[in-house]
Amino acid sequence: MAWYNKIGNDFDTVISSRVRFARNISGYPFASKLSGEGAKEIISKVSDVYLGEGFTKIDFSDITNTEAASYVEKRYVSREFAIKKTPHALLMNETTGSAIMICEEDHIRLQSILPGLALNEAYKIACQYDDLLDRALEISYDEKLGYLTHCPTNLGTGMRASVMMFLPALTMADRIGVLASQLSKIGLTIRGMYGEGSETKGCLYQISNQVTLGMTEEETLKKLSDVISQINEQERKLRSSIRGENLERLRDRILRSEGILRYAHMMSSEELAEHFANIRLGIALGITANISYAMLGNILIETLPATLTLSLEENPRGEAERDRARAEYIRKALC
Amino acid sequence: MAWYNKIGNDFDTVISSRVRFARNISGYPFASKLSGEGAKEIISKVSDVYLGEGFTKIDFSDITNTEAASYVEKRYVSREFAIKKTPHALLMNETTGSAIMICEEDHIRLQSILPGLALNEAYKIACQYDDLLDRALEISYDEKLGYLTHCPTNLGTGMRASVMMFLPALTMADRIGVLASQLSKIGLTIRGMYGEGSETKGCLYQISNQVTLGMTEEETLKKLSDVISQINEQERKLRSSIRGENLERLRDRILRSEGILRYAHMMSSEELAEHFANIRLGIALGITANISYAMLGNILIETLPATLTLSLEENPRGEAERDRARAEYIRKALC
Repeated sequence: MAWYNKIGNDFDTVISSRVRFARNISGYPFASKLSGEGAKEIISKVSDVYLGEGFTKIDFSDITNTEAASYVEKRYVSREFAIKKTPHALLMNETTGSAIMICEEDHIRLQSILPGLALNEAYKIACQYDDLLDRALEISYDEKLGYLTHCPTNLGTGMRASVMMFLPALTMADRIGVLASQLSKIGLTIRGMYGEGSETKGCLYQISNQVTLGMTEEETLKKLSDVISQINEQERKLRSSIRGENLERLRDRILRSEGILRYAHMMSSEELAEHFANIRLGIALGITANISYAMLGNILIETLPATLTLSLEENPRGEAERDRARAEYIRKALC
Repeated sequence: MAWYNKIGNDFDTVISSRVRFARNISGYPFASKLSGEGAKEIISKVSDVYLGEGFTKIDFSDITNTEAASYVEKRYVSREFAIKKTPHALLMNETTGSAIMICEEDHIRLQSILPGLALNEAYKIACQYDDLLDRALEISYDEKLGYLTHCPTNLGTGMRASVMMFLPALTMADRIGVLASQLSKIGLTIRGMYGEGSETKGCLYQISNQVTLGMTEEETLKKLSDVISQINEQERKLRSSIRGENLERLRDRILRSEGILRYAHMMSSEELAEHFANIRLGIALGITANISYAMLGNILIETLPATLTLSLEENPRGEAERDRARAEYIRKALC
């Protein structure tokens, strides 16, 4: 069962928690300088470490662009990884929410993703897989700089911890900008759903550590957790302060979103993101009765363009046909 | 059962047919010059004619403004009648769809309204009640000018025959303007739902004869019927010509309207008119499966501001509260 079909702690405000490590194997140049042969060697060596551990391997040379794009949509790989021309592969273990990109920017990008607020749990899982790596292969490490990575922004722990938050009340109150500048002062960053540069849709924001050097992993996780709990409090306080006519109007907006999702014949991803936000807030406020977080989370991911296309018998001809297929998926999923 | 809860012939394009006669009693000045006493005498005389015929009498001096406004919304009386300060009364017979305004502009305004295309039937009913009047009272009549009426535009037959049409395809194709100028050339007129000057909402148009002098009642009805059947043909042809992507987009619009009506928490009359038009077209095209013409017709009338207010236990405080009551009425009516 995929991470986006499960629910977790603090699910009213937190979608998922993710920890990823960047690692490189000694004796090979970084991935950008690696020959095809070298890349294949690394893929083979890393696969050997994990294939006995419940992971399956997806060789990205063997899959279509749509399949690759679907892995991006499901947040198992980066956009850059999906479109790479040189050999690269993915190891996946859905049971533990873990995915390992081999030969992305670094030789190894190991991530664990869990539903809800579960940073420490995700960290534990990632560490466990990192230990396997350490035991089997020689990892590039410097006493002073820590893990050596392709990009200097990952030096040190090589760890990026991130939490995907759902912040409709802060968004409505126009407070994300202020939050972003506060976070940047303490070495954290907030971005739209699919990483840097992507638009903020559906009130989903990824909050992560910017700094990897001069700080332990535990310190980083502690700082992030503290901030998340403060943001949680702000968001919940704002939600519960909605009263009177404002609440009636919000209730109307939420219920209309439900009506539209249950009846529309065509639905774009952009429009869905809005309804997603309305209904997810509706569940949190007890306004939407017959839709669960799990149903909604599944719909959001499964109807993203590439993932939706893969689920169809025939490739949709054009956007209008895909929008109809999306609406149909949604109507059935909400039945 | 009220006219708007029944269905009729050609109901895909025709909502209702109405025939009304303007009559005045000899020996009294027109209503505008009538004393309070004179008005009461006329009310009494006309009531005597009809009270044995299944009519009930509503004395407009005894009812609230909201009750009076509700009769306007249900199309039993004119706006002018509802707000008159001098004595005036309404006789109603819902079984035959008949209503008689006493002391409107003319002493007597007798109308019969039937669902769907039923001009001849409505005419027959109106004639039958007109005969009762003729037998009991002396009606102002001139050999040359016909029935004498307050306004010269009613001289002659004193008859206004009108058909309420539902013309979404002609509206979408922006052809109502052309139609209006064609109709005016042959002595017919097309107007928005509640008579002259009112806005065109929900694609509902009232088509009626302009001319009452120099033409028999039968000639008028024949001309109107012929035109209605031509408009019917145009509207249906246009509807059936909607295909491909346009049809998909229309289907989406129709189904969204259904979703919104079934889920919205607040609904204004203006917004309802749009959804009404979408869904009514949806029924005609076989797109909307679970809503009937009768349900929709009932909703349109019963949720008009004054009528809705009367149905509530407490007067709504402000428009927002009325919009919520309207949405609630709609949701229940569609269950």
